[in-house]
Amino acid sequence: MEDLSFIPDISSGPLDVYRKSASFDWKRLKLALEGDIELLKLKYKIWHTLENDPLFAHNRVTPTVDEQKRITQLQLKRINEYKFHTKETFRSSYTKRTRTLMTINEAVQSLNPSVSVKMAIGIYLVSNALLSLGTERHLKFYEAIIVNREILASMSLTEIAHGSDAKLMRTTATYDARTRQFVVHTPDFAAAKCWVGNLGKTCTHTLLFAQLITPDGTNHGLHGFIVPIRDPKTLETYPGLIVGDMGEKIGVHGIDNGFVMFNQYRIPRESLLNRTADVTEDGVYESSFSDPSKILGAALENLSAGRVGIMQESCHSISSAVAIAVRYAASRKQFGERDAEIPLIEYELHQWRLFGYVAAAVVFRVYVESFTRVYLGFVEKSNAGIRVDNLSEAVSEIHAMVSCSKPLLTWTVLQAAQQCREACGGHGFLKCANLGDIRSNHEPTVTYEGDNNVLSQQAGNWLLRQYASARAQAAVDSPIGTVTFLADHARILQQLFHGTETRHLKTAEFITSTYKWLICWLLQQTHDKYESEMASGQSKFQAKTKSQVYRWKSLTTVYAEYLVVIFSLESIEKKEKELQPVLYKLFYLYGLWSLDKHLVEMYQGGYARGEAPTRLIRAAILELCAELKGEIVSVVDALAPTDFVLNSVLGRSDGNLYQNIEQALFNAPDTIGRAKWWRQAVTKTTSKL
Amino acid sequence: MEDLSFIPDISSGPLDVYRKSASFDWKRLKLALEGDIELLKLKYKIWHTLENDPLFAHNRVTPTVDEQKRITQLQLKRINEYKFHTKETFRSSYTKRTRTLMTINEAVQSLNPSVSVKMAIGIYLVSNALLSLGTERHLKFYEAIIVNREILASMSLTEIAHGSDAKLMRTTATYDARTRQFVVHTPDFAAAKCWVGNLGKTCTHTLLFAQLITPDGTNHGLHGFIVPIRDPKTLETYPGLIVGDMGEKIGVHGIDNGFVMFNQYRIPRESLLNRTADVTEDGVYESSFSDPSKILGAALENLSAGRVGIMQESCHSISSAVAIAVRYAASRKQFGERDAEIPLIEYELHQWRLFGYVAAAVVFRVYVESFTRVYLGFVEKSNAGIRVDNLSEAVSEIHAMVSCSKPLLTWTVLQAAQQCREACGGHGFLKCANLGDIRSNHEPTVTYEGDNNVLSQQAGNWLLRQYASARAQAAVDSPIGTVTFLADHARILQQLFHGTETRHLKTAEFITSTYKWLICWLLQQTHDKYESEMASGQSKFQAKTKSQVYRWKSLTTVYAEYLVVIFSLESIEKKEKELQPVLYKLFYLYGLWSLDKHLVEMYQGGYARGEAPTRLIRAAILELCAELKGEIVSVVDALAPTDFVLNSVLGRSDGNLYQNIEQALFNAPDTIGRAKWWRQAVTKTTSKL
Repeated sequence: MEDLSFIPDISSGPLDVYRKSASFDWKRLKLALEGDIELLKLKYKIWHTLENDPLFAHNRVTPTVDEQKRITQLQLKRINEYKFHTKETFRSSYTKRTRTLMTINEAVQSLNPSVSVKMAIGIYLVSNALLSLGTERHLKFYEAIIVNREILASMSLTEIAHGSDAKLMRTTATYDARTRQFVVHTPDFAAAKCWVGNLGKTCTHTLLFAQLITPDGTNHGLHGFIVPIRDPKTLETYPGLIVGDMGEKIGVHGIDNGFVMFNQYRIPRESLLNRTADVTEDGVYESSFSDPSKILGAALENLSAGRVGIMQESCHSISSAVAIAVRYAASRKQFGERDAEIPLIEYELHQWRLFGYVAAAVVFRVYVESFTRVYLGFVEKSNAGIRVDNLSEAVSEIHAMVSCSKPLLTWTVLQAAQQCREACGGHGFLKCANLGDIRSNHEPTVTYEGDNNVLSQQAGNWLLRQYASARAQAAVDSPIGTVTFLADHARILQQLFHGTETRHLKTAEFITSTYKWLICWLLQQTHDKYESEMASGQSKFQAKTKSQVYRWKSLTTVYAEYLVVIFSLESIEKKEKELQPVLYKLFYLYGLWSLDKHLVEMYQGGYARGEAPTRLIRAAILELCAELKGEIVSVVDALAPTDFVLNSVLGRSDGNLYQNIEQALFNAPDTIGRAKWWRQAVTKTTSKL
Repeated sequence: MEDLSFIPDISSGPLDVYRKSASFDWKRLKLALEGDIELLKLKYKIWHTLENDPLFAHNRVTPTVDEQKRITQLQLKRINEYKFHTKETFRSSYTKRTRTLMTINEAVQSLNPSVSVKMAIGIYLVSNALLSLGTERHLKFYEAIIVNREILASMSLTEIAHGSDAKLMRTTATYDARTRQFVVHTPDFAAAKCWVGNLGKTCTHTLLFAQLITPDGTNHGLHGFIVPIRDPKTLETYPGLIVGDMGEKIGVHGIDNGFVMFNQYRIPRESLLNRTADVTEDGVYESSFSDPSKILGAALENLSAGRVGIMQESCHSISSAVAIAVRYAASRKQFGERDAEIPLIEYELHQWRLFGYVAAAVVFRVYVESFTRVYLGFVEKSNAGIRVDNLSEAVSEIHAMVSCSKPLLTWTVLQAAQQCREACGGHGFLKCANLGDIRSNHEPTVTYEGDNNVLSQQAGNWLLRQYASARAQAAVDSPIGTVTFLADHARILQQLFHGTETRHLKTAEFITSTYKWLICWLLQQTHDKYESEMASGQSKFQAKTKSQVYRWKSLTTVYAEYLVVIFSLESIEKKEKELQPVLYKLFYLYGLWSLDKHLVEMYQGGYARGEAPTRLIRAAILELCAELKGEIVSVVDALAPTDFVLNSVLGRSDGNLYQNIEQALFNAPDTIGRAKWWRQAVTKTTSKL
């Protein structure tokens, strides 16, 4: 057994009673959820290092937004100086290097999401894009950005009037053969690049996507360029640019999101990221699809890496949220019989409100850890030029998986954060409970890196293509194997709900087979609706828009839940024996709690009939809640970061709820004493009361 | 027809196309939703007055929390000075006076919720409580608080360790016959009164609820006292008190929520609010239930007035949120065919995401307006000593109605605010879109004035009592008539889903009869579960906790939706003819959109069978969305306050979306130019890039 003494023990206190009832060692579960002891050690190293650095100390009073931007920038610089990544990191395998960088990102994100977003965009995303879209001449930027951390970059894609529809971006880069430069131009404010993280105040370069126009007037579509924005020495912007900050937002206040308008701004020809296409000095456009598998691998990485990162971060956000709410529920007493008050966690309603999200936190982590391995394995093989069968099909499948998983995870975590806040009552509304910040910092993830509603439609496209193949008795293109079962769709659609007792439902077989039926049925519904719209004379575009509600959208949700189910199941089967009982309970709870949301479709499609399916699924959920009550505090101990990182007066591991609130109140600077502005607050009165 | 020229016209612009397609005059609808032209005029008078006062100007940069508290306090003082309520207000009938004060509250809330909460607690709630719990000797406080606005009060009930369970509050007021004083004492920090609005920095008096103990040691339970906290001239707290501010919160930053610990703090005997009970000078406790009907009326008002106010405010919050999202959806284009981009509002998915909430905003307003009349009518009659049949039963029914309506409305509005933010994409994440503040300022309403999950259980208690009567063939105690149909429960439970076309579902009859079935069935389920738990030896307390999930909780939700349905229906029937088509469409949409969430119960209970019910309900919802597309912009024009009050760069009525964003960005002080802290942000580098 590995030595886990690097994980700090939890001090004895009011929660002992719930910790002693657990069937497992929470540190073992923590390791199992991380999946790699070295990465877990790295996380603790980062957390301890930052806890000991006053630059990362928590503020009792929220600084102004400008000050938050300053602190975030300094924290990022400090993290770069700590070199949690080493030169060795960049000499190791792609998978190892990337896992290390991802772990650093996760550790930082759970403490300050603004810093991790700044880092993820300005360092990881841009440097990855340089590798995949650029060539040797751009390596100096790669080195400066990610290896030496000398410059901070940004990525300019979205425009004021266009976000989801990237094709219609209107910023142009017109080649001028005379000077061998591209002339970048923004036609009007609606075409200003916007929401660009790091652009508002700090980045020196941006990776710009603009329509490439050759001297003959041909528009060759969006291409990437590396463009200087600010003088690195003075941080003043260059002439020909109007660069501004987007101003205040709802969350992630430490990020300086910015906008930029280019006024005939000239950049060298070599700024074009020219891996797939280039413009000759004379202005001739040349496409070079010499090595399709590499290009595909690169494309895959570009599209998905950011979203995989968001899924990892989402796992940490939900872990923190449920840890706070569960520890609060175990220490907060309210009502009871004969004045013997009982903790909230004893109430079935409270269990039901929270435990589904605890289960989601666990299976999401297991899923994302497992999926990340698969994902990085494909990219690594592709980068290394190893021949991968069906690479293009695998790329499509991974893209579909990410396109629906990112929405499922981010939305579920958003709901979880809200439910956790409500479950902590009024005290949950305290800023120092941290549930508000967890929520508002998480919130933009449902929009950025692909709006959830738009992004998930792409998974639907892929699923419908596979279904069409299956209907035509052709092979389903599913190298990862997530929908090979579609070959069997006709038989699956004949299946009916089976089970007469809850124990029949608390099985992997029931959960996976029900999901297979749901996917097949929703595919059929979506397909039929789409075809009937087409038959009635609608265009493909119209037919697609008319097939979203109750069909396409539900389909992609169900597919994403199925992915969580099958990946986490496969992974749980391999975990150590001692952990399996609790992991299976959490798995069953997540599966049934998720299926419960699709009961209507089960009835509509004839899979479920009568009262039994609803009664049994719901009874099983409540049984699992009761069974997990004695485990759940230790489960959240395994999910939670250190108390310093969790930063919640309600969620400290010692469970000394009221002492911790008292300490927080009496250490805030403005708690006691009249306001400085008391003279203005007084009302003149003559009456004596 | 009334002259509605006091409502400013909307300037012509990009949204004209959607406004011209409306079947009605939006100003007529606005009046119909307000229900009273004088009150509508008052609202506009307030909005225009505050728009012209720089003290109420919007900030481009969010002030510190302390500064927000200062501004809020000054705004409240200024509003008091404006005297939107007049001396006459206090001479008019109870109903008229209260409607006027409620309208002022609504108008202020839609501009700055912190001011309205400060006012609602510190002026309305406390003065109402003084009237109903106090006697003549407390009238001077009433006068000073609400008529002359000389002192600002607060209400101290919740303690650190007890919120929902008010009976277990531990603050004591022990009578000392020697000095004829009560000695107020807080045993420890867990018993500190907390979350008290206005207590943190500004109030001079608090209405305290404490356990009254007589010299013989008897605890007579919670009683109200009016207690001095700060010297009105200096705002310094008195000796014997530790008063502090709760610090930062998630929203309503302008309110100084505070806590207080009493250390043997002496107050005069006359501080006791002695309408229902008093302590003689010698220390003898005397209860005086001389006029039960008045006491009941007073109790009703105390319990419900705050919650009715929250429902009214919720209607304004959802109105603002949907106005922003719908106007954005009508002006924001994305995707389309052959590069002809189409507005988001044309997408069925987008309609489905938003229009249900627009319908909710309308029917909620109609419901609350109508319910408020009923409610105030009862209180007025009761106050005036007019004999009301079944007063105590009516009080119980109204309490049940409020106890489930406040949760339904506040939760729906919270979801609406979130959906509206997401529907505005990244731009919705801008602080100046105002959706973040609408959401976070609304959020505490699901917790305060009775936690939604706890409060709604009280409606369940009442419903189950009525069901027990109905089962026993006894009379159902429902003077308002909301559940008189329970007498018919056996026949109702025999009913089945009927209808073979969507037009059969788009009827008041279908919606109300389905709700009646749902209420009867969920009553049966909840009752049976409770009885079976009792039969298995559980205590009443345990049986109740085991009947919440899927039963009690669903029951109270369905009952609340039914109340919205029947009250809004009755009111719509009386509206002018020109408005009825659009109001009925909105009503049907709300009804079916809400019923859609209970399809599982319909199948489980055998009311629905096969695919038709789901298919028809969902088809009807999408048909209604399509039918409302041409109406919806004018509907939100009727819901929205003025542009100044709405304060959203995305939701201005002119629809000039990108110009408005441009203006907002270029008028914020920190948009352009490098950060003041640029020297710290620079990274030393030798490379030339």
